[in-house]
Amino acid sequence: MSLTTVSTARSHGGTQGVYRHASAATGTDMTFSVFVPDSPRGTPMPIIWYLSGLTCTHANVTDKGEYRAACAELGLIFVAPDTSPRGDGVPDDLAYDFGQGAGFYVDATQPQFAEHFRMWSYITAELPAVVAANFPADMGAQGIMGHSMGGHGALTIGLTFPDRFRAVSAFAPIVAPGQVPWGEKALGGYLGPDRAAWRRHDAVALIEDGARVPALLVDQGDADTFLDSQLKPHLLADACAAAGIDLNLRLQPGYDHSYYFIATFMADHLRWHAARL
Amino acid sequence: MSLTTVSTARSHGGTQGVYRHASAATGTDMTFSVFVPDSPRGTPMPIIWYLSGLTCTHANVTDKGEYRAACAELGLIFVAPDTSPRGDGVPDDLAYDFGQGAGFYVDATQPQFAEHFRMWSYITAELPAVVAANFPADMGAQGIMGHSMGGHGALTIGLTFPDRFRAVSAFAPIVAPGQVPWGEKALGGYLGPDRAAWRRHDAVALIEDGARVPALLVDQGDADTFLDSQLKPHLLADACAAAGIDLNLRLQPGYDHSYYFIATFMADHLRWHAARL
Repeated sequence: MSLTTVSTARSHGGTQGVYRHASAATGTDMTFSVFVPDSPRGTPMPIIWYLSGLTCTHANVTDKGEYRAACAELGLIFVAPDTSPRGDGVPDDLAYDFGQGAGFYVDATQPQFAEHFRMWSYITAELPAVVAANFPADMGAQGIMGHSMGGHGALTIGLTFPDRFRAVSAFAPIVAPGQVPWGEKALGGYLGPDRAAWRRHDAVALIEDGARVPALLVDQGDADTFLDSQLKPHLLADACAAAGIDLNLRLQPGYDHSYYFIATFMADHLRWHAARL
Repeated sequence: MSLTTVSTARSHGGTQGVYRHASAATGTDMTFSVFVPDSPRGTPMPIIWYLSGLTCTHANVTDKGEYRAACAELGLIFVAPDTSPRGDGVPDDLAYDFGQGAGFYVDATQPQFAEHFRMWSYITAELPAVVAANFPADMGAQGIMGHSMGGHGALTIGLTFPDRFRAVSAFAPIVAPGQVPWGEKALGGYLGPDRAAWRRHDAVALIEDGARVPALLVDQGDADTFLDSQLKPHLLADACAAAGIDLNLRLQPGYDHSYYFIATFMADHLRWHAARL
């Protein structure tokens, strides 16, 4: 549980920190960032988890996400974990969409990945304990959001723990990894060929299998080059319609898959979360 | 004058572009970024020049500056140039504070730098013509701001062209390069040992020599590690007091020299500019 402070800086009336710790879940050092607004009386604050997409570390959203002004205004702690274990002893892949930087928020069962690629346990169990022990977070008021692969993580974790996360949203999420190339490669690689084992890591399959949340907010750029091949938000819309989940799916004209898109709608998402926390 | 579009993306209800052109001033290709808010009737918009600090390219503020939301709200075009010529044929220095990434917004007179290091001409003459020809900019309504070395550039250019720039502001500027190590190295290196030639590239000296603007806004973090050695804002305060320039110098408690600091006060500066444009 001991935490190394990599850096801290004042920003937007709060403190942006970067921290490192030895993770029991992944067997590696893990780095994450936390923004904590000033809280004059030290009152615990609601916490938003932001899960990043393929190739990202904690740093991408920390640099480009434009979340601090809204978090300071709304009194929200913002946590940005890494997307995979990293290091010399960790298996990797030449492609950007598998291995380091592409943990897909699962606990791998395939032998060559099972030792380190345990991002599900890391994000849902180990890191929350670390955050609760080290920051003024109200663990009774949590929301989760993410982008692309991290949108997949936010949806699947939010659907699995509906009592823990009062708000779930995503930017351009992979909604049905079992039906698209990114997901088939990753879930097949980490979990093996039995597709039944993939369903609890597939938001659309989870909903089909009975998982429920009251509402979801999803923004999707209509100029996103991955829209038709990897993201397929209509599959989520169909599943939510059949399940009675109140999905607000907003197609944003002209927007792409980048942080320019995420940053544009970040404050909207944070306000939507704050209203539910 | 022909411009290559490196990238464009929708962001915050406008277009963030990155462009490249062959510069006659520097004899190199130069890259810059421009954010243009949507203007339904194609009306020309006021333009803000942002000059970056040591080691930066256009990309630092474009990624981390958090200016787009306020520019879209206020209807401001935001231009971020590079900080020096770059390329294999351009002289460089092993240190971060001289050579490539450290043009200091002067036209070098020393033989080894005079061919390419002509950032004064580039920023004050060539790039404005390129921007005027390619973007819906109201060149009658310009403001200029910058950070650190770029704050030095904004102050010296603003003081030299008070009729062109209706608003001038800076984040943690080098206010008196002739009196600090960064400036002595750069001005000595580019302009030679005669300190009389440095004065028109030194904001405090310019004011002492009679340059005037109606008002200046400067933010400075009091935890900035360069505050006492390189920045010395009290020298600017003294010069402005003697000259009757309305300087609003805000010491920001706990803030450092980073983009976390700049981004925090960016919207304030943009509003201050917009009120004067």
